[in-house]
Amino acid sequence: MTESATLAGLGEFGAVGLLTRGLVAGAGVELGPGDDAAVLQPGGARVVVSTDTMVEGVHFRRDWGNGLETGRKAVAAAAADLEAMGAEPWALVVSLTAPGDLPVTWLRFFHQGVLSECELAGLQLVGGDTTRGRDVTLGMTVLGRLDGEPVTRAGARPGDVVAVRGRLGWAAAGLAVLTRGFRSPRAAVAAQLVPEVPWGAGGEARRAGASAMIDVSDGLLADLGHVARASGVSVDVEAARLEVPEVLRTVAQATGKDALGFVLTGGEDHALAACFPAAGVPDGWSVVGRVVEAGDEPAVTVDGRRWEGAQGHDHFA
Amino acid sequence: MTESATLAGLGEFGAVGLLTRGLVAGAGVELGPGDDAAVLQPGGARVVVSTDTMVEGVHFRRDWGNGLETGRKAVAAAAADLEAMGAEPWALVVSLTAPGDLPVTWLRFFHQGVLSECELAGLQLVGGDTTRGRDVTLGMTVLGRLDGEPVTRAGARPGDVVAVRGRLGWAAAGLAVLTRGFRSPRAAVAAQLVPEVPWGAGGEARRAGASAMIDVSDGLLADLGHVARASGVSVDVEAARLEVPEVLRTVAQATGKDALGFVLTGGEDHALAACFPAAGVPDGWSVVGRVVEAGDEPAVTVDGRRWEGAQGHDHFA
Repeated sequence: MTESATLAGLGEFGAVGLLTRGLVAGAGVELGPGDDAAVLQPGGARVVVSTDTMVEGVHFRRDWGNGLETGRKAVAAAAADLEAMGAEPWALVVSLTAPGDLPVTWLRFFHQGVLSECELAGLQLVGGDTTRGRDVTLGMTVLGRLDGEPVTRAGARPGDVVAVRGRLGWAAAGLAVLTRGFRSPRAAVAAQLVPEVPWGAGGEARRAGASAMIDVSDGLLADLGHVARASGVSVDVEAARLEVPEVLRTVAQATGKDALGFVLTGGEDHALAACFPAAGVPDGWSVVGRVVEAGDEPAVTVDGRRWEGAQGHDHFA
Repeated sequence: MTESATLAGLGEFGAVGLLTRGLVAGAGVELGPGDDAAVLQPGGARVVVSTDTMVEGVHFRRDWGNGLETGRKAVAAAAADLEAMGAEPWALVVSLTAPGDLPVTWLRFFHQGVLSECELAGLQLVGGDTTRGRDVTLGMTVLGRLDGEPVTRAGARPGDVVAVRGRLGWAAAGLAVLTRGFRSPRAAVAAQLVPEVPWGAGGEARRAGASAMIDVSDGLLADLGHVARASGVSVDVEAARLEVPEVLRTVAQATGKDALGFVLTGGEDHALAACFPAAGVPDGWSVVGRVVEAGDEPAVTVDGRRWEGAQGHDHFA
């Protein structure tokens, strides 16, 4: 088979084989791909499960990023949800839907990207499924192990501080660049193509006593809004505490956007945002705000006022 | 919101809410939908995981079956893989990709279908995700609990008998009817729209000492071929032992097909096929063949000869 071959030529079983090959069962994995299901042994731990889907043209474009970048992004976006519960990433099952004319080369790069990000995250690819469809659709279901209580969105208490770990606004800045047909600044573009998840930081936050946690997929304000509503509190972000890197200022200037707006409302970076008792913020986390009593209803404010810009995104809107 | 509303009007969070609402955490489920991930407690058992995707136009048509039937079929097809390992169905996460003009009515019926089949299977819906895309794509990832060793495809031994539990050929007969624009015999059409999985039979087979097991999704001969190759054996099916129900004969006659061909090569019924020591076949299972030493290579024969008809299907072919 040549590298110009397509998925149609590979066939369903060939595609599944390519997607899942070369895997060795690791910690807690008794049986990997190739049977009706994978078999895992959590050894007394809780099991945490989450699913995330990326669709070509909605979440990624094949003319912007290659298969390796897309595979990494799909894994990162899904597994960040495990970190956000304070769990340890453990196992991944991949569902690939694609048209028959998808180049096998893209699939090989995608497979490499999946494995690369799995290694960073600590995940093991234990199963896969391929299906024909018009859009390339990447369904990632991730399982985590959790020794202890999960950190939900619902535990924030007035008096806690809000801290973040990871980058904010970079992926949105990259999107602003790419949608205008540019490929630089490269750091912003790279952040849109592959998020840099702070792997391991979720478990650290849990062990440090985080009261609530979420990964920033929709934008800091939107995701803190989920925490505020689930916890029945309000959150105030102090703009002066947010880092606005030079690359965001550059992109903002070039695209007529607001650099702070990228930081506050940009999604897809998959940083972690967590609430901690004021004295308990672990190293590496930046305090960006505080939890207060909810007024008439839970709200998120910036320096005491509602933010007037955009509030994250909604894929069906 | 009226029943003529669409997914675009509902929005992403509204769609996820509709998809996962009304759920109460049950056995082993500590935290269901609404946070970054669900949290499960297997209580010392192994965890079995499998994923399965259905795409509109490939695996189902909205003009053939309604949302309720499609929801039931999607759950059944995925969870049958848990039965095939001898596991107890436990938890489900659903990923729905759909165009913005999908009627909310369809989504409500789909949700009811998912919950109905979950109840039959013993599954709990613990999470969901919705995404925009051109094709309605249903990603179902199922988790099972397993107290004991899994029944893989690899344990069949010469001298074992091959037995089946559930229907064979019905879904294929229904497909033959529907593709010709007919809606009857209704029993065959209904079998195509919603498979009748023998829930619980996988665990029974495991406890009875099954040496290998698979669910019949690609067709009896094709799926026994997977068992033969994984086990390094050959399998001979005795045609006279296969039940060929009247409805299959009727459809075969009307469509110019072979009724026995439906039974041997028809997919999507999700019956279970298992190998047992000759004296150990549990009640309710029908012996249809035997396991023999592989010749030059593992093979599946019918009455000692290779079957000359079609050999199941491949979605990318």
